[in-house]
Amino acid sequence: MNNHVMPAAERKVRVDLGDRSYDILIGPGLIAAAGNEIASRLKGRKVAVITDENVGPRYLEPLMASLKQRDIEAVSLVLPAGEKTKSFEHLIPACEAILGARIERNDAVIALGGGVIGDLTGFAAGIVRRGSRFIQIPTSLLAQVDSSVGGKTGINSPHGKNLIGVFHQPDLVLADTDVLDTLSEREFRAGYAEVAKYGLIDKPDFFAWLEKNWQAVFSGGAARIEAIAVSCQAKADVVAADERENGLRALLNLGHTFGHALEAATEYDSARLVHGEGVAIGMVLAHQFSTRMNLASADDATRVEAHLRAVGLPTRMDEIPGSLPPAEKLMDAIAQDKKVKGGKLTFILTRGIGQSFVADDVPASEVLNFLREKHPQ
Amino acid sequence: MNNHVMPAAERKVRVDLGDRSYDILIGPGLIAAAGNEIASRLKGRKVAVITDENVGPRYLEPLMASLKQRDIEAVSLVLPAGEKTKSFEHLIPACEAILGARIERNDAVIALGGGVIGDLTGFAAGIVRRGSRFIQIPTSLLAQVDSSVGGKTGINSPHGKNLIGVFHQPDLVLADTDVLDTLSEREFRAGYAEVAKYGLIDKPDFFAWLEKNWQAVFSGGAARIEAIAVSCQAKADVVAADERENGLRALLNLGHTFGHALEAATEYDSARLVHGEGVAIGMVLAHQFSTRMNLASADDATRVEAHLRAVGLPTRMDEIPGSLPPAEKLMDAIAQDKKVKGGKLTFILTRGIGQSFVADDVPASEVLNFLREKHPQ
Repeated sequence: MNNHVMPAAERKVRVDLGDRSYDILIGPGLIAAAGNEIASRLKGRKVAVITDENVGPRYLEPLMASLKQRDIEAVSLVLPAGEKTKSFEHLIPACEAILGARIERNDAVIALGGGVIGDLTGFAAGIVRRGSRFIQIPTSLLAQVDSSVGGKTGINSPHGKNLIGVFHQPDLVLADTDVLDTLSEREFRAGYAEVAKYGLIDKPDFFAWLEKNWQAVFSGGAARIEAIAVSCQAKADVVAADERENGLRALLNLGHTFGHALEAATEYDSARLVHGEGVAIGMVLAHQFSTRMNLASADDATRVEAHLRAVGLPTRMDEIPGSLPPAEKLMDAIAQDKKVKGGKLTFILTRGIGQSFVADDVPASEVLNFLREKHPQ
Repeated sequence: MNNHVMPAAERKVRVDLGDRSYDILIGPGLIAAAGNEIASRLKGRKVAVITDENVGPRYLEPLMASLKQRDIEAVSLVLPAGEKTKSFEHLIPACEAILGARIERNDAVIALGGGVIGDLTGFAAGIVRRGSRFIQIPTSLLAQVDSSVGGKTGINSPHGKNLIGVFHQPDLVLADTDVLDTLSEREFRAGYAEVAKYGLIDKPDFFAWLEKNWQAVFSGGAARIEAIAVSCQAKADVVAADERENGLRALLNLGHTFGHALEAATEYDSARLVHGEGVAIGMVLAHQFSTRMNLASADDATRVEAHLRAVGLPTRMDEIPGSLPPAEKLMDAIAQDKKVKGGKLTFILTRGIGQSFVADDVPASEVLNFLREKHPQ
């Protein structure tokens, strides 16, 4: 018996990938409704749930209860929280737990957590029996609008982040917006940087809407659901057009080249800088650099900075606590990330708000001069 | 400068998989010609070669020399030989070696070895940077006609063989037929079981040709190349029709259900039974069982047994050294492998030589009775 009443506010985004298409449901109460949503879609009757020590104590019990109500047999594995979990050390027990639960073709693996749990669990699901069904229940704003959509999974290597993994699309994403109420302000803001990013890539109206409605988005309710749905749809559109990142998908990296360099410069110390904060500063820098290259107006860069500052995100390198390495070192990190060919870099630049594009001939020397200016020693 | 002269006997099989299509080259001297073949196909200029302690001492040096001649930068990793290498323990250093060599999008990972090295290396190539280019240089007959074609990669888990892996097609397969001269007679015969299998699946003329020409195939030269090329083409056709094993590809398991049960019953002890020997006995059993089910004539089963015995392969369970567990235990292993639904099993049966088919309603009780008859206690 399906006794799930669709809440008025619930939204559905379809990710269109042929026989790998799937739904993202966005709304309140979706963890409690997970049993119904999964039972109506899954042929099998078994799942393995992987979560972490932060999320598990709060949401594992209601999820397991919801699954049990619909007679879905579930086992769970609780891993340590944090980026270090994205490693072979934790991938191995994740795979063995899935196999131990005898998850087969019609059963599923569930990731309950933020980006780390989603990436690791998706990778495990992607390699057990050469690909098992996979359900994402993202519990951070960042995971709901970014990492849970698009099928990129993986772990880190001593050689760098996300270097080992597979493309493995989920079969269903349940974005329960209630869980966002328990995020810290800082964590919510960091996720918000990616929401704003979708406006800056190619949705100027959405960016303008965010400028007016960001407080409502932060408070929860319909505006928050709307912002998440627009973000998921934006990412879904890009992923549908370029599943394996051969071209267009690179636009999703707006702000990320500078952002990654800053994350590396702060040694991924979340006390100093989290991913979304690096992206916020990076997006402002990308707009300022585009202005410097005479591509975009200075007003647009100012507007981007003003909005991100209004929501409480950092927008300048000197807002990062502690000292940063000199511009030359930041440039090295960018060159490692991006690969310089004949002194030229590929970069996401913009002609204005909502007019981002992939530039593959950006002179490395110009980027270095710009960084020296923004970050004088 | 491309100074590779195509030997008269060299054969090429194309595996048709859309944008994942690739060539299998079959012939003498292909390790020495690897540099030319790879240079003419690869945009990049770097490779990581993974091999094992049996194959490395013999073929790594000529391969590296051939690569160097064409200015392809190569690093190598030598892993222990044997089935135990198909584990996370060895996958991790394989991935790190590939990353350490800075193999990027246009570069490639090379597997130089038998099925174990091919499966492990293909898996590593499949997950480094979410999929790197991959070249197979199979050095056993089994690997040349079976495991190097089709894109199945993976490692073993304590829960079972090949349970963790990905589908990752190679970009090129170089089957150097000279290397087969150094295989032991027993190893060559074991690979030959899979060659005969392609005849038994759906190529009765090929099986008849093998009955006449098997001695020439064992001696080397044109007949051997022909047999390998026909086998690769046969597998390529099945894989092209069913890349991810949703149906037809199951035919490749002819003889494997009984074979796997016997491998498990002998605890994968290669002194008692190697995979190809299990498949040989399994194919004879599959034909005899098909006769018992009134599907095929007894003459066909007799003909299959006679040919495999002629080449020196075991064809009966009582030829396996040491004692086997009772029929009931063998049946348990089959049921674990195949999953019984309502007392019925999926099995590859046959209506005669070259007329195999997937039967999904074989009564488990009939299989058990048959095993009791063939293996009385």
